[in-house]
Amino acid sequence: MIITVVGLGVIGGSYVQALKGLGHQVYGVDCDEETLSLAKKDGCIIEGFTDGHEIIARSDLTIICLYPSLVLDFITHHTFKKGSIVTDVVGIKSYFLEKALACIDPDVEYVSGHPMAGREKKGYAYASKEVFRNANYIVIEHAKNKKESIEFMCQFVSQLGFKSVKIMSPYDHDEIISFTSQLPHTIAVALINSDDQKYDTGKYIGDSFRDLTRIANINAELWSELFLNNRDYLLASMIRFEEQFDQLKQALLNDDDNALKEMFLESSKRRENLEK
Amino acid sequence: MIITVVGLGVIGGSYVQALKGLGHQVYGVDCDEETLSLAKKDGCIIEGFTDGHEIIARSDLTIICLYPSLVLDFITHHTFKKGSIVTDVVGIKSYFLEKALACIDPDVEYVSGHPMAGREKKGYAYASKEVFRNANYIVIEHAKNKKESIEFMCQFVSQLGFKSVKIMSPYDHDEIISFTSQLPHTIAVALINSDDQKYDTGKYIGDSFRDLTRIANINAELWSELFLNNRDYLLASMIRFEEQFDQLKQALLNDDDNALKEMFLESSKRRENLEK
Repeated sequence: MIITVVGLGVIGGSYVQALKGLGHQVYGVDCDEETLSLAKKDGCIIEGFTDGHEIIARSDLTIICLYPSLVLDFITHHTFKKGSIVTDVVGIKSYFLEKALACIDPDVEYVSGHPMAGREKKGYAYASKEVFRNANYIVIEHAKNKKESIEFMCQFVSQLGFKSVKIMSPYDHDEIISFTSQLPHTIAVALINSDDQKYDTGKYIGDSFRDLTRIANINAELWSELFLNNRDYLLASMIRFEEQFDQLKQALLNDDDNALKEMFLESSKRRENLEK
Repeated sequence: MIITVVGLGVIGGSYVQALKGLGHQVYGVDCDEETLSLAKKDGCIIEGFTDGHEIIARSDLTIICLYPSLVLDFITHHTFKKGSIVTDVVGIKSYFLEKALACIDPDVEYVSGHPMAGREKKGYAYASKEVFRNANYIVIEHAKNKKESIEFMCQFVSQLGFKSVKIMSPYDHDEIISFTSQLPHTIAVALINSDDQKYDTGKYIGDSFRDLTRIANINAELWSELFLNNRDYLLASMIRFEEQFDQLKQALLNDDDNALKEMFLESSKRRENLEK
């Protein structure tokens, strides 16, 4: 099978590394020649291209690991092999799929996907098949998908080290992701921005503050696009969070030891069972 | 110097391990005999005691690594060597120090401390000198402290691997800790408790959700005590967080791309500079 990965950053780079040794003919497309030659030297791609037109037209599977707007641009300006499968790694799906399906050749099978993995740092240097190890993957099924294409994608990503592969509609995906990914990002941003900077904060933190603010270092362009295009679900998740946060505040205001403990016992139980 | 560490859990155990090879005579007190014999086998303590009375009376420095109420109990029921230094690792200081100073012999120098380090798991098995590596330490200075005792503590903990040692009043400590430690805990609890559990959440999370909820698994007794005894500072921190969270919500409601991006640029800058 000829597979081309477009964009060899952390995610695309991790794809080519995870694909190594699985028996496919893997190619890479990237605007950076150095990245391509590194991936070739690593034995992860047969050849790299800064212009993908020729290889894309021959690929059975194209994995586009670019930012949302660049994916649409890429789809619009490239001709895919008839009957081939094209996938992406975009973080929200409803608004994006609508646009992608409007511009892609109907003879191509577009199976959107979401590897719930990443690194803080950008670029091929931080890519590794370890990025996918034990991570979750969501295969997005839309009305025009063939059953066998969805089955193929599930089987395909299962070889790459993901511990769970789930199939979801774009709407369900966007709903759960508003809670598990977007809400944590809003929280991290609000937390670090709420520092009144009276003290030299970095000298008075432990791992809890480090962990809760790691994702406050956020790509402004990308995440404002992701947030605004998933606004209703995200707002609903934010409101549910606010309700719980307010319950804690009320318990403090009322000196209500028992109410606090109940909430802590509930949160502990939920956290313990989270990945069971 | 004779040093006795009381309570060989993650923190106390890390103290005895970090003290190994620094030339002190280190003893341990713990209610668990197995823990004591492990620490002795590791070469971290000369001897372990389940009854600390005899060794405490001979120690130049006593490091009490117990929960707040147990520290008070220990202080009340033990006689320390005149002129010796006693310290603790309790997470908040104003209310606690008041009680501790009321029951300790005035001829003993009580220098409260806060190693901002820990592990998710409990017990000596998870102790390691790595726990302190690159962590922050706060030495608490109160009105009755001698200057040389504060200086001694700063120098003493500096040998243990901490990257920063700061001196603070109990009030300043409790104010900054309400933001850097307690607020993150309220957030983690509220986040996981706000899950409506419509989906099998654990299958749709990435590291952001894992990181932000890790501390939602929380010791209910301990943290309700810490929260309620630092209520005013914690509430002030919670309110500042809510204001920022609400700003994000308003930007979403108003479809205000620029406002979102500004907040993301600010949070990114703050996170990048946090430990510089």
